[in-house]
Amino acid sequence: MRESALLRHIHRSAVADAVVLIPSGDDMAMVQLDTNQVLTATDQLVAGRHFQLASTPVGLIGRKAITRCLSDIAAMAATPVASLAAAALSPDLSERWCTELFDAMHLAASTYGCPLIGGDIALLGEANTDLVCTVTVLATPGPTPPVRRSGAQDGDNVYVTGRLGGSLEPDGLGRHLEFEPRIPEALQLADQLGARLHAMIDISDGLGRDAGHVAEASSMKIVLDADSIPCAAGVDWRRALSDGEDYELCFTASGDVPANVGELKITKVGEVRSIDPNDAPTVLVRAGEQLHDASTMGWEHAS
Amino acid sequence: MRESALLRHIHRSAVADAVVLIPSGDDMAMVQLDTNQVLTATDQLVAGRHFQLASTPVGLIGRKAITRCLSDIAAMAATPVASLAAAALSPDLSERWCTELFDAMHLAASTYGCPLIGGDIALLGEANTDLVCTVTVLATPGPTPPVRRSGAQDGDNVYVTGRLGGSLEPDGLGRHLEFEPRIPEALQLADQLGARLHAMIDISDGLGRDAGHVAEASSMKIVLDADSIPCAAGVDWRRALSDGEDYELCFTASGDVPANVGELKITKVGEVRSIDPNDAPTVLVRAGEQLHDASTMGWEHAS
Repeated sequence: MRESALLRHIHRSAVADAVVLIPSGDDMAMVQLDTNQVLTATDQLVAGRHFQLASTPVGLIGRKAITRCLSDIAAMAATPVASLAAAALSPDLSERWCTELFDAMHLAASTYGCPLIGGDIALLGEANTDLVCTVTVLATPGPTPPVRRSGAQDGDNVYVTGRLGGSLEPDGLGRHLEFEPRIPEALQLADQLGARLHAMIDISDGLGRDAGHVAEASSMKIVLDADSIPCAAGVDWRRALSDGEDYELCFTASGDVPANVGELKITKVGEVRSIDPNDAPTVLVRAGEQLHDASTMGWEHAS
Repeated sequence: MRESALLRHIHRSAVADAVVLIPSGDDMAMVQLDTNQVLTATDQLVAGRHFQLASTPVGLIGRKAITRCLSDIAAMAATPVASLAAAALSPDLSERWCTELFDAMHLAASTYGCPLIGGDIALLGEANTDLVCTVTVLATPGPTPPVRRSGAQDGDNVYVTGRLGGSLEPDGLGRHLEFEPRIPEALQLADQLGARLHAMIDISDGLGRDAGHVAEASSMKIVLDADSIPCAAGVDWRRALSDGEDYELCFTASGDVPANVGELKITKVGEVRSIDPNDAPTVLVRAGEQLHDASTMGWEHAS
């Protein structure tokens, strides 16, 4: 089973209800209430996939469960409201360990202004050593409108924050456990760039694949420049495109963009180009004389 | 590890933030947005615990994942808005099966006016045959204010809808898979009873344990009458109190209550009594001359 195919199926079958302002398929969905709008997203953190249960401190597991969902709020340039956390746990885990897990989620959620207001606990089967943490976040749009994946325009430049690649190193205990969700930076970018900020996504699957999500949602072609990719130490452009779990922002904008947002570096990594109506959206990366398909250079658990 | 102890810890540590109108610990939490309020709850459906993966039709698994979370909306007498569904799946499950799972969740969510607007997929480890579905629902209060667990008053009568017990029969494929979330009934009760409807909960852990949640949240004693419990066919009062997975409503109200809500029977099953400040809240069940502690007669997966 491939996750991406199933996710596409889920998004396609999402209801086009009058109250749904942003349907399934973006970093967050948005619904209309009486007078306010609310954005929401849900994300899972799975032992053995997103972290190693045996070697990862429980505090960092709880932190990541929250922060990766907060990164979705950053991707929309939205404002956190509250979060919910559910855990399906091996019965072999001690009550103390589980308490520390929820304490860590609680702390991270509060730290980023998204207090934990609900939760659920379920035990997995006896022989099961897994852990699944599912976090849902609520946010409100604003101060500026949510920035979607689908807004990229012909002639936009493509930018990323920070440095990419190698986030699992060393030994699965790297940056992916302790990244800062880029919420203040996203809000500042949305404020500074205004309507020139056309599309945004957070980089979880890898820049290649996530830029592909922007290209597909926007029906555009994105051409990245391998030499310009801001690689983390010890990582080449291929890994910077494909490692994933960076939780930096990738955005497209027209005109000039500041060199930094807060203390975080912004790097131009490519351009958006229109495509013929019969062509498929794509992401290419130019390395020397060669163009590679970058939209499949990313992180997916295939069967 | 005992789930209830951990859940209490989670609820205790929930932030008392200005925007949180109903904190963690009720069927749903409620937060204040700019002018509107939104309620939210999250619930997990775990293979081997809430259903048997091998013997349960995929359509009923997806349906239950949604409806048990909708039952939380009923418990608050709130109005559904939208839902999100996340699944952590064994890689052994076929893409077709997973597609059918999400189709079933989508159908159930739409049927009850709570369209699926977001989702997440993650694969479990290779040797893992489990499935965890986590559903989050959003709702708005109203037309009447949310009915909490904590409002039971001295002298209230305790009522339940429908019949209790035996919901897993036959062979784990019983009523617990095809129950109707009592949302219209809850809204009608809230409308008809108004301020006389003091407390409400949905019966998932069993009437004994769930009435215990009301007693504890309200700092009251609840005395149930064994002879009055509306038992499902072939089930005695002990099982009606303890089997769980009924997804009927239990509520407390002052004064008279209609015999039915819609086509659903309402039965008076007990009374609410105040307690001395030094006494612990409790649920007792009177059977003949004897009083039994009913608050532990319910369904919990203990270590």
